[in-house]
Parts: sequence; C-alpha cells; structure tokens
Amino acid sequence: MIKSFSKRESIFEVEEGTTLQPKFDDNNLIPVITVDSNNNHILMHGYMNPEAFKLSMNTGEAHYWSRSRKCIWKKGETSGLKQKIKEIKIDDDQDCVIFKVELGGLKASCHVGYKSCFYRKLALADNKYSIKLEFTEKEKVFDPKEVYGDAPNPTKL
Amino acid sequence: MIKSFSKRESIFEVEEGTTLQPKFDDNNLIPVITVDSNNNHILMHGYMNPEAFKLSMNTGEAHYWSRSRKCIWKKGETSGLKQKIKEIKIDDDQDCVIFKVELGGLKASCHVGYKSCFYRKLALADNKYSIKLEFTEKEKVFDPKEVYGDAPNPTKL
Repeated sequence: MIKSFSKRESIFEVEEGTTLQPKFDDNNLIPVITVDSNNNHILMHGYMNPEAFKLSMNTGEAHYWSRSRKCIWKKGETSGLKQKIKEIKIDDDQDCVIFKVELGGLKASCHVGYKSCFYRKLALADNKYSIKLEFTEKEKVFDPKEVYGDAPNPTKL
Repeated sequence: MIKSFSKRESIFEVEEGTTLQPKFDDNNLIPVITVDSNNNHILMHGYMNPEAFKLSMNTGEAHYWSRSRKCIWKKGETSGLKQKIKEIKIDDDQDCVIFKVELGGLKASCHVGYKSCFYRKLALADNKYSIKLEFTEKEKVFDPKEVYGDAPNPTKL
C-alpha cells in the first residue's frame, strides 16, 4: 500500500524508468483523464492532490480533488456514479494520469446529466472550427436535480 | 475565422448553450487531451493559451502552448509529427478540450519516441496499484536523437 511518492532525481528515470514519480503542479495537483473501460471514450478531466492519488491507488475507486469545493472528492459518494479503476497510466514526464474505469450507478459520469462531460463539439464553417457548439449526446442519462438535489453546482464562471 | 472568445455570463449558457465560452486558468491556459482519430487512443495531454486555441481553430493544425519553452508550439514544426484536427470537443464547464487528430510524419506523437505519451501503466500488487511501472508499448516508433537532434528536452524535474 502506497504511503508516499518517490522523489524525481533524473529525467532518464522519469521518462524511461519503471518507478512512479508523479509531478504535482504549483497547486499540488496532477490532471487525470478518465476513460470508459468499455469503449475508451473520454468521460471527464479532473485533478488529484497526492492524497487523492494515494486513495485511488490503494482502494481502486476513483478519488479526485474538487477545485470548487476544495476537498477530496470520492467520485459517486453523493450521486452513486462510482468509478472502479481498471487501469492507471502515466505519461512521459509523469505529470498526467489516465484512469480507465468501469462506471457504477446510472453508468454516467457528468454532473449535468450526460454520460460524458464532452457532449459538445465545435461546428465547422468554411473548413474552420467555429464558436458554434453542436451536441454529440442526444439526451441526458439522468436528471441532475433528482440525483444531486440542491447541492451547489461545481461549474464556476 | 475566430478573433476572440465570448464572455462567460451564465452557468446555464456555459453548460447547456451552443456558444464556445472557454475558461482559461490562472496561467491563461486550457488543457487539451489529444486522441488518435483512427482508434481513439489518447496520445498526449497539453495546454493552449487563447492564441494557440485560435490558431488551432483557424488552421485545423494542432497548436499548443509550451510551458517549458514559454512559446506557441505548432506541433510537428521541428519533428514533422504534425497533427491535423478532425474534431474539437469541449467539456461541461468549458475548461478542457479534446482534439481528435490525424497523425502526420512518423505517425507518432511523443518526444521520447513512442506513439503515445502514455506508454506505461501502474502494476498491480495484491489488488492495489503499485509504484512499479510496466511498459505498454513494446518499442519506440522513432529515435528521438535523429528527430530532435540537440534540442532541449521539454521534460523538467
């Protein structure tokens, strides 16, 4: 069971080595890309502090750092939309993580009610990407009011 | 052709609207997850400032902000590993982007020589994720010395 992370001492070890040596940013966070283990679709993009990373590794359940609520966020604790981690990958310079997860509950991930947080794409106009968004998910999986009640919306302006 | 981004004025518009209103972080950056349009595999995780985002939208060629070199980075300019953007997605609160790309040149993306930057996964031990890394790509696609010569390594300790 992991208690602390190894120090980064050489770029060769970070890039080509076989020891996890994650880099946390100025806010002590590392980004996580969460993908659905069934089809490799990207579900969300979150962040972990070292404590959330250790909890994820030790329990196999996805834990994040909520930047809006400023606390450890065990995914699915309020909503039941739990994420069981099937694989954890790390990138070349070890400053980004991928979680491949099996979805629990309503088999969705996004607090707005869609399966994935990435439910819109930029429309094309004259072969250039425009500011017009098109929905790629036709309907919501669940009604967020039923699942979250009056909990504050994590989206900030 | 986009010249500037819309202001964020309501959470409903940000989450459920059809206008791009991206949120840049304290460093004026937005994260980008880049996936291979052939198989949806994640290739890399980068960042854009507003200028790089506009260049990507207007040219259809992936442009990032290099945090190590502190400049706009047109992917493939040195290495030939260009990325032609086939789709751009944005997430619920519009603070993260996905590029679906077609790889140019040697059909790889990672400066270490692998196809994807995510060429290692965390090994399992006693049903917990350990700090031991296992390679998921068996060999490099290219020799970085041949492609980058003496250019400084972007990986930082």
